[in-house]
Amino acid sequence: MPLAKPLVVTAGEPAGVGPELCNALLDSPYLDDLVVIGDRRQLDERLTVIDTPFPVEVAPGKPDSANAATLLDGLRAAASGCRDGDYAGMVTAPLAKSVIADSGVDFSGHTEFLAELTGAAHPVMLLVAGDLRVALASTHLPLRDVPDYLTPAIIERVLRVLDRDLREKFGISQPEIIVCGLNPHAGEGGHLGSEENDIIAPTLEALRTDGMRLRGPMPADTAFTPAAGHKDAVLAMYHDQGLPVLKYAGFGHAVNVTLGLPIIRTSVDHGTAFDIAGTGTADPGSLFAAVELAASMAQS
Amino acid sequence: MPLAKPLVVTAGEPAGVGPELCNALLDSPYLDDLVVIGDRRQLDERLTVIDTPFPVEVAPGKPDSANAATLLDGLRAAASGCRDGDYAGMVTAPLAKSVIADSGVDFSGHTEFLAELTGAAHPVMLLVAGDLRVALASTHLPLRDVPDYLTPAIIERVLRVLDRDLREKFGISQPEIIVCGLNPHAGEGGHLGSEENDIIAPTLEALRTDGMRLRGPMPADTAFTPAAGHKDAVLAMYHDQGLPVLKYAGFGHAVNVTLGLPIIRTSVDHGTAFDIAGTGTADPGSLFAAVELAASMAQS
Repeated sequence: MPLAKPLVVTAGEPAGVGPELCNALLDSPYLDDLVVIGDRRQLDERLTVIDTPFPVEVAPGKPDSANAATLLDGLRAAASGCRDGDYAGMVTAPLAKSVIADSGVDFSGHTEFLAELTGAAHPVMLLVAGDLRVALASTHLPLRDVPDYLTPAIIERVLRVLDRDLREKFGISQPEIIVCGLNPHAGEGGHLGSEENDIIAPTLEALRTDGMRLRGPMPADTAFTPAAGHKDAVLAMYHDQGLPVLKYAGFGHAVNVTLGLPIIRTSVDHGTAFDIAGTGTADPGSLFAAVELAASMAQS
Repeated sequence: MPLAKPLVVTAGEPAGVGPELCNALLDSPYLDDLVVIGDRRQLDERLTVIDTPFPVEVAPGKPDSANAATLLDGLRAAASGCRDGDYAGMVTAPLAKSVIADSGVDFSGHTEFLAELTGAAHPVMLLVAGDLRVALASTHLPLRDVPDYLTPAIIERVLRVLDRDLREKFGISQPEIIVCGLNPHAGEGGHLGSEENDIIAPTLEALRTDGMRLRGPMPADTAFTPAAGHKDAVLAMYHDQGLPVLKYAGFGHAVNVTLGLPIIRTSVDHGTAFDIAGTGTADPGSLFAAVELAASMAQS
């Protein structure tokens, strides 16, 4: 079924695998619904393209930070097109943070950049692989900083974003969310850490009285298995509690979704892969899945 | 192929699912190689049993700590039989730590008990599901205690035990081990934590000069996927970095192996399941897999 509005795809770092992955989209069932923002010279003529020529022509694997401003302009165009209703949502191919930082722009990633552009205070990272959805209560923090970061206020606001977006963007009317404990065995009744009793459980209890369907805090080594029963999403407390299992389960077709934005945004779950750019060996599975999920969200 | 010596299976907590899982072993291809230690009254007459009658007859789900001493005697008999060469190895059905603690015995688990019995200084927990093997550098610690626990000495001794037992007990002549970083993205070059640069990488470098085949520190969300290439085992830095993916991958047939003991010991990866004991619904998959792995290790 064609979409009511097109999806916009940003081709990302021109020296990475993004442009060649976009060319693979010729085989996507959503081809007619896609507009690609990138450098026309890198993109197949059969794609619908908004041309943003890069000032420096780069070889695969050899990025040049002089192209960063053009790349960011493309992201801005995609996001504002989504806000203005020109596009149903945006799908991002990878960029390299370090290349953009080298250009002198303070840049910590797609997610934060898009949150700022769209005035979103609390973006939440969700990874999707098939019917497994894993959100993160904390993302890119050193492990030793995680326990003190996770206050009741943080956990509450992540859960509110997750619950709302599962309803509004995924069309799940009564989302069931499993929340992991912070410690092994979810603290084993306080024997292996106190954060479950002191922080997580009371927060969940308060949100349940607000109507949210939450289970946990649950041991993370149970939460993802069939033994945990049905769930629409799992909230992991930190990066390596949730992503190893998600990336194992969804190898080659996992999708990164930013929740908490006023627009739909999905992304590949991998980087620019400078080491294989230009060899034609990059697997477009994650970009295909990101397009498919954005289309599905647009129709929810 | 029959084993040269039998395996001994301890039936575990009599009010849990252990005895009924042992009865399911009638369908094991290794039935003729098994000796079960437990209460004859709970065990099928077709099993070969060393009878250790419990003083208190218990109903399913209603344990009595007065049975703890008998249960521990059974474990001692199994372990000394392995040391004396009567058995090729031991397989343990679950017990409940709290029931044993309630009897007044200082008991922190099968692993520590067997390590003490056999004079093993450094037991290492390894979980196995099919060809995925995950060892833990730290086990049952609150998350906030993990970073300071992981010294070079700890990581070295865990890796030495893992490497040696992969050779000696799994018959892998040149084990390849992937070692996870502690922090997300393995610290991303120091931007997300310093332990990779300060602790893990130098330790691996020193052990490589000793001939060990180690890769890492690697981001945990890559380490378990095919993108990481061949590995004989992954060493996770802590419980919830390694076990969610292992239990997801091996749901219903994961096996817990204690390395670093002078004997072979495998175990189910689940607990006594008091809530379903006696209902006949407990899945014997993990016990079957634990027997099969012990048999395979005995033949390595």
